[in-house]
Amino acid sequence: MKLLGAEEVAKHNKKDNVWVIIHDKVYDLTKFLPEHPGGQKIIMKYAGKDATKAFAPIHPPDIIARFLPPEVCLGQIDKQSLAAQPKVESAEEKQIRLAHEAKPSLSEMYNSFDFESVAKNVLSPAAWAYYSSGSDDEVTMRENHNAFHRIWMRPRVLVNVKDVDTTTTMLGTKVDFPLYITATALAKLGHPEGETVLTKGAAMNNIIYMVPTLASCSFDEIMDAAAPGQVNWLQLYVNADRQVSKQFVQHAEKRGVKGLFITVDAPQLGRREKDMRQKYEEEAPDEIERTNTQVNRNAGAARAISNFIDPSLTWEDVAWFRSITNMPILIKGVQTAEDAVLAAKAGLQGVVLSNHGGRQLDFAPSAIEILAEVMDALRAEQLDKNFEVYVDGGIRRGSDIFKAIALGAKGVGIGRPAIYAMSTYGVSGVDHLLNLFKTELEMVMRLMGVRSLSEINRNMVDIRNIKDHFVANPTDYLAHHAYDQPVPRGKLPSKL
Amino acid sequence: MKLLGAEEVAKHNKKDNVWVIIHDKVYDLTKFLPEHPGGQKIIMKYAGKDATKAFAPIHPPDIIARFLPPEVCLGQIDKQSLAAQPKVESAEEKQIRLAHEAKPSLSEMYNSFDFESVAKNVLSPAAWAYYSSGSDDEVTMRENHNAFHRIWMRPRVLVNVKDVDTTTTMLGTKVDFPLYITATALAKLGHPEGETVLTKGAAMNNIIYMVPTLASCSFDEIMDAAAPGQVNWLQLYVNADRQVSKQFVQHAEKRGVKGLFITVDAPQLGRREKDMRQKYEEEAPDEIERTNTQVNRNAGAARAISNFIDPSLTWEDVAWFRSITNMPILIKGVQTAEDAVLAAKAGLQGVVLSNHGGRQLDFAPSAIEILAEVMDALRAEQLDKNFEVYVDGGIRRGSDIFKAIALGAKGVGIGRPAIYAMSTYGVSGVDHLLNLFKTELEMVMRLMGVRSLSEINRNMVDIRNIKDHFVANPTDYLAHHAYDQPVPRGKLPSKL
Amino acid sequence: MKLLGAEEVAKHNKKDNVWVIIHDKVYDLTKFLPEHPGGQKIIMKYAGKDATKAFAPIHPPDIIARFLPPEVCLGQIDKQSLAAQPKVESAEEKQIRLAHEAKPSLSEMYNSFDFESVAKNVLSPAAWAYYSSGSDDEVTMRENHNAFHRIWMRPRVLVNVKDVDTTTTMLGTKVDFPLYITATALAKLGHPEGETVLTKGAAMNNIIYMVPTLASCSFDEIMDAAAPGQVNWLQLYVNADRQVSKQFVQHAEKRGVKGLFITVDAPQLGRREKDMRQKYEEEAPDEIERTNTQVNRNAGAARAISNFIDPSLTWEDVAWFRSITNMPILIKGVQTAEDAVLAAKAGLQGVVLSNHGGRQLDFAPSAIEILAEVMDALRAEQLDKNFEVYVDGGIRRGSDIFKAIALGAKGVGIGRPAIYAMSTYGVSGVDHLLNLFKTELEMVMRLMGVRSLSEINRNMVDIRNIKDHFVANPTDYLAHHAYDQPVPRGKLPSKL
Amino acid sequence: MKLLGAEEVAKHNKKDNVWVIIHDKVYDLTKFLPEHPGGQKIIMKYAGKDATKAFAPIHPPDIIARFLPPEVCLGQIDKQSLAAQPKVESAEEKQIRLAHEAKPSLSEMYNSFDFESVAKNVLSPAAWAYYSSGSDDEVTMRENHNAFHRIWMRPRVLVNVKDVDTTTTMLGTKVDFPLYITATALAKLGHPEGETVLTKGAAMNNIIYMVPTLASCSFDEIMDAAAPGQVNWLQLYVNADRQVSKQFVQHAEKRGVKGLFITVDAPQLGRREKDMRQKYEEEAPDEIERTNTQVNRNAGAARAISNFIDPSLTWEDVAWFRSITNMPILIKGVQTAEDAVLAAKAGLQGVVLSNHGGRQLDFAPSAIEILAEVMDALRAEQLDKNFEVYVDGGIRRGSDIFKAIALGAKGVGIGRPAIYAMSTYGVSGVDHLLNLFKTELEMVMRLMGVRSLSEINRNMVDIRNIKDHFVANPTDYLAHHAYDQPVPRGKLPSKL
Repeated sequence: MKLLGAEEVAKHNKKDNVWVIIHDKVYDLTKFLPEHPGGQKIIMKYAGKDATKAFAPIHPPDIIARFLPPEVCLGQIDKQSLAAQPKVESAEEKQIRLAHEAKPSLSEMYNSFDFESVAKNVLSPAAWAYYSSGSDDEVTMRENHNAFHRIWMRPRVLVNVKDVDTTTTMLGTKVDFPLYITATALAKLGHPEGETVLTKGAAMNNIIYMVPTLASCSFDEIMDAAAPGQVNWLQLYVNADRQVSKQFVQHAEKRGVKGLFITVDAPQLGRREKDMRQKYEEEAPDEIERTNTQVNRNAGAARAISNFIDPSLTWEDVAWFRSITNMPILIKGVQTAEDAVLAAKAGLQGVVLSNHGGRQLDFAPSAIEILAEVMDALRAEQLDKNFEVYVDGGIRRGSDIFKAIALGAKGVGIGRPAIYAMSTYGVSGVDHLLNLFKTELEMVMRLMGVRSLSEINRNMVDIRNIKDHFVANPTDYLAHHAYDQPVPRGKLPSKL
Repeated sequence: MKLLGAEEVAKHNKKDNVWVIIHDKVYDLTKFLPEHPGGQKIIMKYAGKDATKAFAPIHPPDIIARFLPPEVCLGQIDKQSLAAQPKVESAEEKQIRLAHEAKPSLSEMYNSFDFESVAKNVLSPAAWAYYSSGSDDEVTMRENHNAFHRIWMRPRVLVNVKDVDTTTTMLGTKVDFPLYITATALAKLGHPEGETVLTKGAAMNNIIYMVPTLASCSFDEIMDAAAPGQVNWLQLYVNADRQVSKQFVQHAEKRGVKGLFITVDAPQLGRREKDMRQKYEEEAPDEIERTNTQVNRNAGAARAISNFIDPSLTWEDVAWFRSITNMPILIKGVQTAEDAVLAAKAGLQGVVLSNHGGRQLDFAPSAIEILAEVMDALRAEQLDKNFEVYVDGGIRRGSDIFKAIALGAKGVGIGRPAIYAMSTYGVSGVDHLLNLFKTELEMVMRLMGVRSLSEINRNMVDIRNIKDHFVANPTDYLAHHAYDQPVPRGKLPSKL
Repeated sequence: MKLLGAEEVAKHNKKDNVWVIIHDKVYDLTKFLPEHPGGQKIIMKYAGKDATKAFAPIHPPDIIARFLPPEVCLGQIDKQSLAAQPKVESAEEKQIRLAHEAKPSLSEMYNSFDFESVAKNVLSPAAWAYYSSGSDDEVTMRENHNAFHRIWMRPRVLVNVKDVDTTTTMLGTKVDFPLYITATALAKLGHPEGETVLTKGAAMNNIIYMVPTLASCSFDEIMDAAAPGQVNWLQLYVNADRQVSKQFVQHAEKRGVKGLFITVDAPQLGRREKDMRQKYEEEAPDEIERTNTQVNRNAGAARAISNFIDPSLTWEDVAWFRSITNMPILIKGVQTAEDAVLAAKAGLQGVVLSNHGGRQLDFAPSAIEILAEVMDALRAEQLDKNFEVYVDGGIRRGSDIFKAIALGAKGVGIGRPAIYAMSTYGVSGVDHLLNLFKTELEMVMRLMGVRSLSEINRNMVDIRNIKDHFVANPTDYLAHHAYDQPVPRGKLPSKL
Repeated sequence: MKLLGAEEVAKHNKKDNVWVIIHDKVYDLTKFLPEHPGGQKIIMKYAGKDATKAFAPIHPPDIIARFLPPEVCLGQIDKQSLAAQPKVESAEEKQIRLAHEAKPSLSEMYNSFDFESVAKNVLSPAAWAYYSSGSDDEVTMRENHNAFHRIWMRPRVLVNVKDVDTTTTMLGTKVDFPLYITATALAKLGHPEGETVLTKGAAMNNIIYMVPTLASCSFDEIMDAAAPGQVNWLQLYVNADRQVSKQFVQHAEKRGVKGLFITVDAPQLGRREKDMRQKYEEEAPDEIERTNTQVNRNAGAARAISNFIDPSLTWEDVAWFRSITNMPILIKGVQTAEDAVLAAKAGLQGVVLSNHGGRQLDFAPSAIEILAEVMDALRAEQLDKNFEVYVDGGIRRGSDIFKAIALGAKGVGIGRPAIYAMSTYGVSGVDHLLNLFKTELEMVMRLMGVRSLSEINRNMVDIRNIKDHFVANPTDYLAHHAYDQPVPRGKLPSKL
């Protein structure tokens, strides 16, 4: 393959002649330019330059080979010539570097919120927008954690809780505590080593990691990073071309994956407006007329990656999946008791109650809200044996895990907290976060008077208001403005 | 007709000798000055000048001819002499022009709230006050959208939602999706082309526009702007002089209008205090003593236009309306199940559940709150067949449309969102807004697991708290001030 | 009586020799100084000077004659010598004068909240603290209006509401609308003419004024200010010395008072901490050590006036009151259905449901909250005929009056709104405020589809949540800080 | 014992040679340095100096003697040499001194919140963090007082309340009103005289003080400070070594303690993150790499003191406690009706419903919330006689005491309010605070129409919402930003 110099590549930086370097290869994207789903602007930003850092997090490594004709690849870049070029730090890169330098010590991270707050500072705007956004008004996204606040505890005393055991099994795998890292896309937006960071963190705490279809790393890279004997699960977006899915699933099974989780809550991606706005900001050049309505409507990182989810998937496809794999199959994204019962009747091994982290349908209920009624419905039809119910969404404290277990969950998944820990402190961050969750869970169990997960039951929580959605009357601003708030004594005089 | 020069007109600018130019005609308003319902101040502002821009949005075009003697019209203005006069841009005009220049691209408008936020900047204070105000403390106005937040979704999965059909019929007309633009007065306050903008936007999306009685454009101007085959409806304020209403209705029917909506929630106009205050600001000159209590109590744009609504209208008038037209007749402004049942028994074709956009009675319930009980009451009396129930008020998201359909509505009306889109981006704005609503509705249907409106039913929404009005206890300010809020790690040092 | 010059009086300004001028008389208060319930400080502030302005609002005119020996009165002040003295405007007086000059025109007052907001500026700190304060955390004070927000409307349409009649009778007196001005103490704190302003305002609107025991004006001054034929009521604090009360009641009856309202919710005055703090501010001189704990605990205007309320009053006293007067007797301050029933059984003519404007027991319920259950209890015992139930507390809108009537009240009382209107714009202010209430009530009746008070019934309001007291869970600050709020498009760039 | 000079001690200030002065003795802590549970940093801060002020509040006086070999004590400090050394006021000490000088007069303290607000200013950061912190998100800590806001009053009128009697008995002791000061650790953090201040304050008001196991003063110092005949209780953390507990309990009984309260809600200390953060701030030197994750995870004052609480304590231990003492035994920290019943069945004299001031399990219910159901459960099993139920947590007003009595409590405990009063104004502060509570309670009783505690019953309070935990829907920020709040007339122009 031809070796090309960085200087030569740099000359091809016009719309009618665009070369870019990706993963050490040089491509001529001139013809592809107008067809790029993510817009021309972002390609032109890297015209004549190395685009790998921007390309890698949001494209599968093999996408060019699969979708563009071989002749667009002009050759190999001469790495030495590339290294010789002066590095210029952009304002955004500088901002991120300084934020990383200024971030608190990992020991000061006392809870999952701390990681989120740090992530807000150290992530690139594109990564923050992609990870932090929810759909529409983000009501469901915030409801996910809020719903746990509607569940109160009923602690018992004078139980010998010297020794507390948090271990359990999930689909037959013994784990240290009932939490797994759920599948989230595009980990390289937050960390250059992407999903491998999450796998390693999971291994360090003997819990399971669910590998995503839309990973930034290739599936095998992730599996290769796993510790000996580490169990992973696979999250699957079903492709309209079932052969693609079949190959993927069977390859995963061969590599030792122990559970298949088919996502069913995303026949269409939700509108994540923060992500859309961020993308727009990046795309819209100052010189474009602000009133020009012809700017391509751009849909953020989220939409750029999801051309491969089949909206016609139905219950009838379940049998086919059963035929291609021996892994336990669960569906992820169930949001009603009715569908949980259908899943059990369809012979699946379980469900994940989930609203996709509040990224799909706004006003979808939180998993924890519907958990109790799901368990009741399964029990009523005697379908609760050998059927595992997981929940994800809004898990931020050890007490959230306890509440989910009390209401019948086999375990809980976390998404954003792990992503934020990864993005801020890498593997150590993920390890620390998981340790916090486990430590908090142990404390809650001890203070609740239970010694093992099997001792936890529904009577230990008060769910009287779990299904209530309180919307306050609109504020009475005239009265509010007229009112004279009482102020306590003891405000310091300003001189202090 | 005599031709008069602008210079000549300019001389008549005193209270005892006032000429103004309106729609290219010169009027001597000296005698009318003390009788003007909107006050003398506003006429004197345009004494000797062209008042058309201020006059047009809030007066029907033929009002002078109908109410003033012919001799007040002195002749035609010499347009060339007018054009020769130097234009002076007022501070308000400059502010609005700059706001228009600075507004975001239409592509950045991701939802109906974005249009409202832009409208706040680009509308004249008079227009913003008129459009945005509600009655009294604006509790009902805000409740209208809030009420949708009390309705949560129950999404179903593994349904083939590749193809989603949002079409339906309304009073027999096939439309692209179940939304119409409802009647709102005085469109020229927001856009020089007034209601024709809304008609055109509706046509582009194959939905219905309800033409208002209190339009800024004449009825025929609006109908002339309609696309071939476009269906419009007519909103009617019933005049105490029934012949006026009869002529209007029969003319509309001849022009092809396909539905008559009689407003029944406005026997008196509500107190819209923001509008009243804005009007006062405009009227009260600095030189008036601030303690003078004799300044005429002025009621804003709202009251200036509503001398023609008969407060003595009753159910007995329905038969007469049936006798003068063959159009389907519905009443707009129903707010109880009892009145919906009465409407059905009176042989009407339907009702619009509405509280007039929160502009009439504060603490009136939102339409969406009472929809389910209205449908139940109709069903209980077997009156739900061939009877169409619409709702308006607070529709801001595609999910709001879905919720209304789920609770039994045939369709929903939007008012302010369309007005704001019109005022900010004209026809393109209205088109874009309607497109957003349709796109969001399609997404919601897909994520809910339905393929057509007929598959939507009440079981898909959770309305447990729909009738709850939660008012928080007064804040405990002393405790609040004394409490030390926890702050997460990771606030950036100020140097960044 | 001896005539004394201002210059002579001015010399007596030391603690061991204190003269002050009150109502044109000169008093030697040297011996009384240490016994003054309001503290020495305030007397010394006026040592050698005219103290009338400070004295008048918070003392009955005859208090010195009644409680001090005649020899303290040294003679008459020479008014000319007093007038000759240069007037010095204090900083507080200047602030109030400027606030009055800057206040909005009365025509801009659109609702009762506007008066409150103006009053906050133009009242002296002492007056504002006394009028605006409630007890403890002021939860009940604010709850009083809040509770109306828990009542929603059920408006009916297509009723002929051309003519709306708001008139009614109260204890046999025909009034223009069902509202009276209730008794509040110390009107001169807000206006130099005190309670006469309220009487006059009531007369102008043909409603009733309830004269307070603790008026700043003498009872006869108030009655003398009444219009011919004007009906007043009397509010009574019962004195431990029953003869004092007997004389007062019988004198009032002779002067034509038509109703006796005995206050029963104040066996002890509530802790109004804002008032206490204000009083402290006034008293505590800078030179006192801030850590000195010996400063006399002072209880604000409220406590200075209430040494004459008998805490031993019981139901058995009712018979005695019946024996001394033929006026209808009602008790004011009932807060349970049980006590309303006892009142009816005791042969009283009615009750006022009231918590004393939130100035007594914090967490006492609002009158409107308990109104429905009170009416039910009376009806259950067939005691609701010839028994009138009034409510006060939190009435701020015409809709509040409507709601009270719907739930069974014969009428409503307003306190602070009238005081604020009086304090800001005098008689015109009270007139304007009453006019606003009447206008709003008429509008609400029209929009509710009723033509007279007798057509109003409980079915017209939704009281589902009337008894619910919602306290929000404590805020989740860590999550709150970490969350990134969405911001709509269209914020103007700062240059505009 | 050898006498050592301050100058000599000052030389030993290196890690390999550390002397410190504590309570006038000189210790060589070189070997102990790496084992100090609170970290080396804090010891090195006082290397070569007098560490008494930092040591005393968080260590029992005899801890060195008990845990370190005798040879670490090198001798006595020469006090004169110490006094001769120049005192340097640190920035923190200066800040606290100025805050004390600027604090309001004690007479201005009108309620318990005022003390808290002053304490925020005058306490050292370490003391404030320790006292004010709760566990996790501090939801339960704040819920404790909030829950009282869900209880409303039903006041009765026309009862002779001239004389009101607040006295009662607690475990047989006659007290002036039904409140005691509960056990809280480390009083010397807030006041140099520690727990003796609280004892003295309690004596002045004839109420009971519960002496804590983790006091800063020795148990005997506290008992010695008691007034003649004053009754104290003892709070006990049970040591894994039961002999330690036995000696402590029997010694207390000998010294006249009249009640034993065994804490059962702390088998592990809760995560008090504010305290942890403060500790970290103090420990983490600037020179440590901020990204270094090896800094010892430090747990604040809370964890430094609690190595002696046995997590294996069970119901079976109760019999043993019965065998070693004749004091009444109660358990403190009961949080369910089930455990209250078990306590009664185990022959205990009562329980304290408590969640440890919100410092242990977040989302544990408040004592007041569960009180009614606890009483019902006891009554149902006829266990409510001779069994006293106390509550603590969130008592801030006299009305809170009333509510607890109405729901069945024998009395209430206060913790933080007393600590804040002690820390701000010493004994006078505690006296004043207790006086406020008593005064408020008397007022509430009078306004409720009761003359003695025995007249108070459950029917006097409305607990309809006591068990409701309302969590508001997430805010609709887009709508919120777009809305134009109404502003009342009467804002002053800026010139005023």
